[in-house]
Parts: sequence; C-alpha cells; structure tokens
Amino acid sequence: MTRFPLPDPMRRALDLAAAAAEAGEVPVGAVVVDAAGKTIGEGENRMRRNRDPSGHAEIIALRAAAAELGSERLDGCSLWVSLEPCAMCAGAISLARISKLYFAAEDPKGGAVLHGPRLYTQPTCHHRPDIMSGMGEEDAAAQLRDFFAARRT
Amino acid sequence: MTRFPLPDPMRRALDLAAAAAEAGEVPVGAVVVDAAGKTIGEGENRMRRNRDPSGHAEIIALRAAAAELGSERLDGCSLWVSLEPCAMCAGAISLARISKLYFAAEDPKGGAVLHGPRLYTQPTCHHRPDIMSGMGEEDAAAQLRDFFAARRT
Repeated sequence: MTRFPLPDPMRRALDLAAAAAEAGEVPVGAVVVDAAGKTIGEGENRMRRNRDPSGHAEIIALRAAAAELGSERLDGCSLWVSLEPCAMCAGAISLARISKLYFAAEDPKGGAVLHGPRLYTQPTCHHRPDIMSGMGEEDAAAQLRDFFAARRT
Repeated sequence: MTRFPLPDPMRRALDLAAAAAEAGEVPVGAVVVDAAGKTIGEGENRMRRNRDPSGHAEIIALRAAAAELGSERLDGCSLWVSLEPCAMCAGAISLARISKLYFAAEDPKGGAVLHGPRLYTQPTCHHRPDIMSGMGEEDAAAQLRDFFAARRT
C-alpha cells in the first residue's frame, strides 16, 4: 500500500480507521477540515465502545468540529472519510452544511451517497456537498476486508 | 387541543417539543420506551443550544436509551417522536434496531420515512421498524405552525 500521494486528511482518516479496527470496531475514520485547511474535528467508529447507535466516525468528527467552531453549521468545511457514509451520516453531513465530502471506499451495502437512497439526489435534500470519491479506496477496502476476514476465523 | 386519548409516550414527546420551542428550537420531542413499557430515553431538539448538527430529539433520545441499557442496540424498544424523522434520524433508528416507530406529524419537506428517500423502503435498509403515524398529529402540527409563525413576525 502506497499512501504517499494521499492528501493528509485522507491519510489521517485511514489511520483513524486502523485504530478503530485495532479496538474491534468496523474500521472507519473521518476528519473535518475548515476552509483554511486546519483540522477541526476527528472521529473513528466508536459505536460499540461508546454503546452509541450514532457513534459512527463521521458523526463524532462533525460533533467535534461543531464544538470547536461553536456552531452547528460547518459551511466551507470539508469532511474526509474512509468509507461512503450511511444514511444517518449522509443526513448529518447535509444538516451540518459540509461543503465538500471526500470518501475513499464505496459501500454498496450500506452507503447512502452513491448507493441505496442516494440522499443527495433527493428533491427534499436541502444541502448537497460536492462529492469526490476514490482517493485511498484500495487502502480503505483492504482495511475492511482484513477486519471482516479476521472476524470470520 | 385534547390530549387525553394520546398514549403517554406521545404526550411526553409533545411536551418535550413544547420545551424545545420555548428555548427557541424547532419543536420536536422524542421518547424511547422499552419492551416492558418503561421510558429509557428522552430528547428534545437541541441543535442550536448544543451547537450540534446531530442534536435532533431522536438522536438524543436514542443515545440516552443506549446509555441506559448499556448497548447500542435497542431491540424490542419503541421510539415516539412528534415529527416524521429526517434521513439522519431515520438512519439512526435503523442502526439502533428500534422495533416500533410512532410519529405524530408528517414532514413532507424534510421527512425521510414517508417522504423523500423513504429510507425503510430501500433495498439496502438492513432493519425496518414497524411504523405508525398520525397520533398527536394535530397537536404537533400546531406546535410547528405556531413556532414558525412567531419567528416570521
């Protein structure tokens, strides 16, 4: 795996995902970066550790960024995440007014951006981030594959 | 408004919604009840007060219930909410494995259960609660109408 060409926030999201996996959680990591390029929120999947159904990496990163900025609206900020967001997280990203969403691996089973409900294509979606997918895709997919392979043995 | 025939959890959800409105938040309230009928989590919309994009009533109630049970899965529990959940909250309800969802007013603009993406009809939805809508609808609609009318003056 060569990570050199990845932008720092995506590399960090993958590192957070790896930390989640080491703790026995599905490996997903997320980072919020403000318009000036400063990281203002991070999260790794903590659903089981925190016993929190909303404890996905994206929600944790968004909450941290909102606390940092003192605002529930994160206009101008970008979210970097290792996996395509689910419906809960895609909805939260829209509510937070995130400007740009970067995700690594697609998630045909649980993703809600390019798959399933494709939330941002819905007429009732009030805010759509710009979307870029694929950066770090191989690394993220390998993390997930290794995690689930280890659990099956 | 006659509230007498409403089940206790929906009456409580409407009271929580009223409290949110008094605090200047969009009036939405939510209650999680376990299989034995005990209330194990409550929430009112605190998005602005908490400066939290995930601070909807349902998320707060789900998190409280999960903390109370010590599990991110709320199998057998019901969620009572004054307004049709948005995509974020509908997704969280599914992730939490809520068994029954009761909501009062429909939300054609932001709802994601009967409107928009209709999340629980999606083939990629892994858990669908039973749904009952309409109880307390007039009260909830009046709360929302009054709230937005007051803000426009």
